[in-house]
Formats: sequence, C-alpha cells, structure tokens
Amino acid sequence: MAIVKDAKLGLSDLVRGVAQKEGVDPEFVRKGVANGRIVIPSNPVHSPDPCGIGEGLSVKVNVNIGTSRDIQKIEEELEKARIAVRYGADTIMDLSTGGDIDLVRKKIIETVRVPVGTVPIYQTGLKAARESAVVDMDEDDIFNGIVKHAKDGVDFMTVHCGITEESVEYLKKSKRVTDVVSRGGSFLVAWILYNEKENPLFKNFEYLLELATEHEFALSLGDGLRPGCIHDATDGPQLQELIILGDLVRRAREKEVQVMVEGPGHVPINQIEANVRVEKTVCDGAPFYVLGPLVTDIAPGYDHISGAIGGALAAYFGADFLCYVTPAEHLSLPDVEDVKEGLIASKLAAHAADLGKGRGLERDLRMAQARKALDWERMFKEALDPEKGRLYRSRGVTKESEGCSMCGDVCAIKILRDYLKKDGVC
Amino acid sequence: MAIVKDAKLGLSDLVRGVAQKEGVDPEFVRKGVANGRIVIPSNPVHSPDPCGIGEGLSVKVNVNIGTSRDIQKIEEELEKARIAVRYGADTIMDLSTGGDIDLVRKKIIETVRVPVGTVPIYQTGLKAARESAVVDMDEDDIFNGIVKHAKDGVDFMTVHCGITEESVEYLKKSKRVTDVVSRGGSFLVAWILYNEKENPLFKNFEYLLELATEHEFALSLGDGLRPGCIHDATDGPQLQELIILGDLVRRAREKEVQVMVEGPGHVPINQIEANVRVEKTVCDGAPFYVLGPLVTDIAPGYDHISGAIGGALAAYFGADFLCYVTPAEHLSLPDVEDVKEGLIASKLAAHAADLGKGRGLERDLRMAQARKALDWERMFKEALDPEKGRLYRSRGVTKESEGCSMCGDVCAIKILRDYLKKDGVC
Repeated sequence: MAIVKDAKLGLSDLVRGVAQKEGVDPEFVRKGVANGRIVIPSNPVHSPDPCGIGEGLSVKVNVNIGTSRDIQKIEEELEKARIAVRYGADTIMDLSTGGDIDLVRKKIIETVRVPVGTVPIYQTGLKAARESAVVDMDEDDIFNGIVKHAKDGVDFMTVHCGITEESVEYLKKSKRVTDVVSRGGSFLVAWILYNEKENPLFKNFEYLLELATEHEFALSLGDGLRPGCIHDATDGPQLQELIILGDLVRRAREKEVQVMVEGPGHVPINQIEANVRVEKTVCDGAPFYVLGPLVTDIAPGYDHISGAIGGALAAYFGADFLCYVTPAEHLSLPDVEDVKEGLIASKLAAHAADLGKGRGLERDLRMAQARKALDWERMFKEALDPEKGRLYRSRGVTKESEGCSMCGDVCAIKILRDYLKKDGVC
Repeated sequence: MAIVKDAKLGLSDLVRGVAQKEGVDPEFVRKGVANGRIVIPSNPVHSPDPCGIGEGLSVKVNVNIGTSRDIQKIEEELEKARIAVRYGADTIMDLSTGGDIDLVRKKIIETVRVPVGTVPIYQTGLKAARESAVVDMDEDDIFNGIVKHAKDGVDFMTVHCGITEESVEYLKKSKRVTDVVSRGGSFLVAWILYNEKENPLFKNFEYLLELATEHEFALSLGDGLRPGCIHDATDGPQLQELIILGDLVRRAREKEVQVMVEGPGHVPINQIEANVRVEKTVCDGAPFYVLGPLVTDIAPGYDHISGAIGGALAAYFGADFLCYVTPAEHLSLPDVEDVKEGLIASKLAAHAADLGKGRGLERDLRMAQARKALDWERMFKEALDPEKGRLYRSRGVTKESEGCSMCGDVCAIKILRDYLKKDGVC
C-alpha cells in the first residue's frame, strides 16, 4: 500500500476511514493526501487506526513518552501510553533514551492503536555518546537506525534534515541566547562541526525518501534550529532552516512520500500567526506540527499552560498538529500524572482552536444545556476529564443536590429558573 | 483626595506611585487617569499600594476569594488572600456569601495592601433570600450595603447597573441557552421581573455616583448579562448591556468617578479580538476587566487553562485586567491550592500578553540566559513559581548536577557547549 500513490488513483480505505472520523467528504481527504496537505501516518507493520493530520481536519495532539537514562521503567511508559490514549491522544511519540530502547518501542507499538512516532537519531546518537562521543556517529548507523524503527512499525519519524553546514555557519554568527535546544539538532550540529562534513540526512535525502517509500513511514521534518527562548523566536537560523525544509517538502512530494514540518518552540503571542503563515507558504501547505509553542520562558512547572496558550493560537491560525507539553517540561521526565495534565491542556487548546473555526460546537452546546439543567452526570460525560470534574464537585461538600459549593443557595441558574419564563421557550 | 479631579490638576502621589511601578512617564499616567483610560482603585479608608489599571500599563490580575454558605472558614480565606499576594495578585475581590460576611471583608482589607473589591449586592441579595426571597431586596438596602462596604475601605465595587427593564424583556425573547450566569445579574433580573420596576442601580445611578464621590471607591460596571457558554457568546443581550454600560461610563466620567467595565465570560477564540475592540469603542477606552474568558465549555477541572488561553488573547488585544479562574470553576469553592493554580495561570496569561506588546521581555531573557548556563537557582528565581520548579526538578532523581532527568546525558545545551564556539561570543 502506498498512501499518496493510492490517493492519486482513488479512494482508499485509509482515506475513507479518516473522512468518516472527521465527518468530511472522502474526496476532500483524498485530494489533501494526494497533494500533500493531509498526512495519514500508517506503517503497514503497525497499521494503526486511521488518523489524518492537515488542512481542513480537526487539530491533532501528540503525546511524547519514553525513558531517560535516569528513569527507565518500561511498565510506567506503557501506563503513560494507555493514559494518553484514554484521554484522547491522536498519536504517541516514543522518545526513549534509557534502558532497553528497542524493547520500549516495540511494546508501545504493540500497546496502542494510534500512530506511533520516534526520533531515530536519539538512539544512534546516545549509543555513540555512551561508547565514545556523539560526534562519532557513523553515517550508516544513522540510516540503519531508521530502518530498524521502520521495521518495528513506526508510523512517522522526526528527521533533522534541515541542519546543514551552511546553517551551522549561520548559527555561529547569530546572536542567539540558547543556540540549540533540540536534542537531535544538537547531535547533528555537533557532528557537522566536529567532522567538517555535511549532515548525512540532508546529503542523502534521496536515500531517506527511498527508505520511506519502501517501509511506508511518514517523515516529520524536525526543526533542529528551533528557538529555545522568547528572545530567539523567529530569527535567522530558524527561518533559514524552514526554507530548506520547504525545499525538502517538494522533493518528498515528488517521490510521493508523506511529509510534515515541525515548528517552534518558544514564540511570543504577537509572532504566532506569522510563524504559521510563513510555514504554510514556504512549505506549500504541508501539515505543520508545533511544539507548544510556549508564549513565555518564565513558567517552569506550568509550561503545559504556556503551551496551551500558544498551541490554541497556532492551531487557530492553521497549525495542524500540536505536540503536548507537560508541567515537567524543562525540569524532569514527566510522570503518568504529568502526561495526563499535559495532554488535557493540549486537547483543550486543540478543541478551542477547532471551535474558533466552527468545528466541534455541538459538544459545547450539550455541556451548556447540561449546565442549564444542573445535570451533573451529563456535564461529566461531556467533560475532557470526567474524573477530575467529579473529584472537584465531591470535594466541595455541598449540601445541594443541584448546585455546587461555590454559590450554594445563590446559584444564578436556580434563581432565574423561578423568575424567568421565556416566551415560547421552556 | 479625589483621584480624577487631582489628576486633572497635576501629578498626585498616587499617579507618581503608579508611574514608578510601571516604569512609565508620570504625565502619561496623569492623563490616563484624567481622561478615564486608567483607573487607580484607592479608597482612603484602606489606602492600598498604588495599582493602575488601563491603557499603556501592564496587564493586571484579580483573585476572587470568599466564603460560601457551605464553606465558611475565615482563616482559610485569609490564607488564600496571603497566597494570592505572595504570587503576585494585583487586586483581590471578596465574594463571600457565607458566615460572618462583614467580618471576612474587614479582615481581608486589614490583611492585604493590594486594592480590594466586592460585589455588595451579594450580601444584600442573600440576606433577603435567606429571610424571604431575593426579589424582596429593599432599594435602600442595596445602597446601604454599598455604603457599608465603602466605609470598610473597599477600593472598587462591581455594580450591575446595565440590567434594565428593557434588557430583561430582550433577554426573554433571546435564544440563549444559559440565560444568566452572573449571580448579581440573576438577583437583579429576578427583582425586575417580580417587582415590575426598574433596576435601582440604573434608576439611581446619579446617587451611586454621589456615593462613589463621597467615599472614593471606583466603580466596576458588572456584566450581569454576560454569556455563560460558547453558544451565547457575543449575542444581543450581551451587546445591549454593553451599550448601556458605555453610556454609564460617560456619566461617571462627567462626575469624575473612576469606572471600569466588566466583560465575558465564555468567548470562542475567533470572537475575542472583536469583544475587546467593541468594548474599547463603545466605552470610550474605559479599562476592560474580563473574566477569563473561557474558550470552551468542556473543561471542568481545567477552566484555569481555558481562562488563560482566553485571557492571554484578550489582554494582547487590549483587555487591561484579568479576573482569574481556578480549576474548581463550575464545580466547587476553590481551596488554597486552587487559588494559587488559578492565579499563576492568569499571571502567565497576563505576562504572555505583555510580552506580545514588547513589555517585560527582560525577565524572559534572564531566564533564557540562566537556562543556557544551566544555572538552576537563577532559573527558579525568575520563575512564576520557584517552589514548583524545585519540586519537579528534585522529583526527577537526576544523577546530573547540571542537566535534568528528562535528557540526562543527551542534553542539547551540554552537547553544544563542547562543540559550538561562537564567533566573538562566549
């Protein structure tokens, strides 16, 4: 099965599946996949439930999980994966960097029916780093890592193809404060500087496209030079990399390889719309996958909220895919609770963006009707997190069967019920 | 001391105090106060630290606290007030509706040096409601309540003057789902319907202005008809009330009474900018004080995040004053932890909006520099919540003295430090 090729020919089951889930015309999805504006990550080895990402579809949310050198409990990562799916994650990325990385990846792919993504260079780089140094990564190892992930069933992979010898020179001259905050990006910048050679993922991009065609995984072009703070947002190195990614999008499309583009990061509110519009122009409408973006640097412990603000705005302006951020961002590996909190913040942002574009309004209307009726069970049913709703309400030790402990007997809804009889409306 | 009158004559100490705190020209603040675009709530009985709200100043955040019928612990409310001040609340509103309401208010005013606001109709209405019915409120009692609060030192008061017999008729014909969700609004709508008389706060607005002049409190014109769900946002009843508030702003300014305007509530992302621009036009630039706004209805337990998204956007487009929302919104009275979480979400939103307008960038730069240096103490110092940052980092059981448990040895900053030597930059 070749997703883009098939879409050019007619309606495939995958395309129909996405259209049904989104409540849109299958022909719309088919055209989007054929022209690259919609991506459906689906490696036949994994064959996840259909998930479309891109123009005209609902905003999707990704959850990053995975071990680190310091925390390597496989069962906990699987629990994170299950919680993520339960609360509506559209995709999961396994970013493991500790313990038996191959095993974690395989277990996650086995466990979830949503598309799974990885960043293969992490594994290649840290193996080199732990044996000698990250700059000793072998070119073949980089591609072998990608093949290994593909054979395990990974549906989409982040590849930092846009970092080049030229962009590293440009970075050296820049006034950036935080230089490089992408882990994969730092591996490749270091590798280029030390080896004085071109980035293998850029130099051999055609080979990468062959692998993607053979194994049918989607590419997610990483933004290794994304800004790491508000000061660095929308600067030269970021935009220069984006221009290169735009070229690579066109090359991938020529070969009928599915491709998305990753974006920042840290962006102040006044630059978010511009970031989305520039990506959509430079990359010819390729699905835009943003990390956050975080709208301030001063919120450690609350970066999920910072990311929800930026994500809602980015998605409203056209970003298609939000990578969640947890409260642990910048501080530690997230635990299960952090994963849930981060995911719900991001789902909230995605839904708010959808509402802003007129999508998904029915659910909010049902919630409003339940509130008007003071029907708590219906409210919890429509809530992003029914359990938390119940917890807060029970905690309030209300004496009311209908109202809550905030207003008690001075509940606006109850007062109006007695006095406001609406004309022709019950 | 008459704040507006004084500002028309020259620089007062209050004006100078605000200018110093904001880092702006005192003449700018003086003009803003004189023409009503800046409000400095300051009742001489309380005489809080100077706090300016309005055009050209940093975005301010209010924290609501107060007892309810079900939860009446005065000491817990005082603890909320202290926590709020500690984490940067600019003002506190006491919305108590349970226990010894007079005592709670007096204690809060004694405890905090930030301006304190109240909604006097709550106390009047619930006294009537508990004795007979809210519609039995006596007109004199409504004004006597206001005088009592003023004499206690309340710096600003929400008064629902914009609900009129006409707007109630309009409401009855509307297709609203949640009708009225403002408590004060519901009291007055019920009162008007039952008594078939005009809203005393509207009818006797000139008398209210006399009281405000005599006791020197600022008015915050409540939006009793604010939408209570996404479906009702920016509808006829809301806008009709706003037009009335615009007229009342002009009348207040004629009498040199300080006045702000309250706004929604529940607003989808695509209508937030319009809401701010309409208020600024219709109310001639009067400071705009918004509750949230919440960008979706389906987030019980996470409404502080919904409010942070809406608040950041509203403030970026010109709202001056954000009323925080806690995770307990719609579910129960918030506890101390909820107050803190809600406040920080709102502070984050206010700061993000300030950054978007080019204000406050230095703090984010210091944070970025601390991150680049992996200097954790400096990071915590710049954080909105140093304690939470420390907690997350310590929880990560990192083996690294410099990095964190997320990336461990594959920390982008550490890798780059070894390989990237920037030209002329250390």
